[in-house]
Amino acid sequence: MRIMGIDPGIAIVGFGFIDKEGSRLVPVQYGCIQTEAHTDNAVRLQMVYDATVQLLDKYKPDAVAIEKLFFNRNVTTAFTVGQARGVLMLAAVQKGIAIAEYTPLQVKQSVVGYGKAEKKQVQEMVRMLLHLSAAPKPDDVADALAIAICHAHASTLQQKMNEVTKR
Amino acid sequence: MRIMGIDPGIAIVGFGFIDKEGSRLVPVQYGCIQTEAHTDNAVRLQMVYDATVQLLDKYKPDAVAIEKLFFNRNVTTAFTVGQARGVLMLAAVQKGIAIAEYTPLQVKQSVVGYGKAEKKQVQEMVRMLLHLSAAPKPDDVADALAIAICHAHASTLQQKMNEVTKR
Repeated sequence: MRIMGIDPGIAIVGFGFIDKEGSRLVPVQYGCIQTEAHTDNAVRLQMVYDATVQLLDKYKPDAVAIEKLFFNRNVTTAFTVGQARGVLMLAAVQKGIAIAEYTPLQVKQSVVGYGKAEKKQVQEMVRMLLHLSAAPKPDDVADALAIAICHAHASTLQQKMNEVTKR
Repeated sequence: MRIMGIDPGIAIVGFGFIDKEGSRLVPVQYGCIQTEAHTDNAVRLQMVYDATVQLLDKYKPDAVAIEKLFFNRNVTTAFTVGQARGVLMLAAVQKGIAIAEYTPLQVKQSVVGYGKAEKKQVQEMVRMLLHLSAAPKPDDVADALAIAICHAHASTLQQKMNEVTKR
């Protein structure tokens, strides 16, 4: 199963594709979509959307996992990130790809095993779980990979529960 | 000049098309896009996007005017409305239509002449300016028409300023 993790934003969108092969997690591609600050807002949304469509076409994920909501930021930030998240979700749903949403707490719990983990700890666990030589930079990329890992763990759990139910 | 005013949301998107013919404002079409509460969030965004694309294709506005930002609501609302606003703006920018953004204060000042006008006053002015027999319902539709009127007024002002500059 191939998972695309997304850390939404308007200036920078982190993304990470991983393959879940049995219990192994294999990094496929990761990076970020960036838009220029002095560009019209609607044009930036279009750039984010177009780049996402290209990524989905190229790497064909089975699922998209995206950060659900942050409660600790201000209304203006929420509004701006919300706009970007809207076009990201649209790109996925238009291609019929399942979208899973996770809160930062869920991601930390899943990746580090502790909901209040520091950013550094999350990055280090991402590096270890994907057997990378260094934590991916910028943080948005590591965050996107963390969200993808969270979905991989959640789907493993779901699979096990299904097996138990079937017995 | 044909203007589409939009009051963004996820459950209900108000829209209103008006024609600016000299100093006259003529209502063309207005209503709302509605999505069911128990539908998946991404699917709702797709419904809003698809319906908007259809409206843009049918009524071919020269400009889209949309509410800029509200500061008085909570982060979760801002995030949700932001997502809807993202796909609305994407639909317009993909068609190369100019997008103008106005704050609720600007809309009230433009339509009623008073930035702290009550909702009722805005609705009544919309009804009068467009020669309607009753204020359009629900409120989201009246709000969308108010935003369109605001843009009509702003572009008249812009036109006059250009004329003065040219002299």
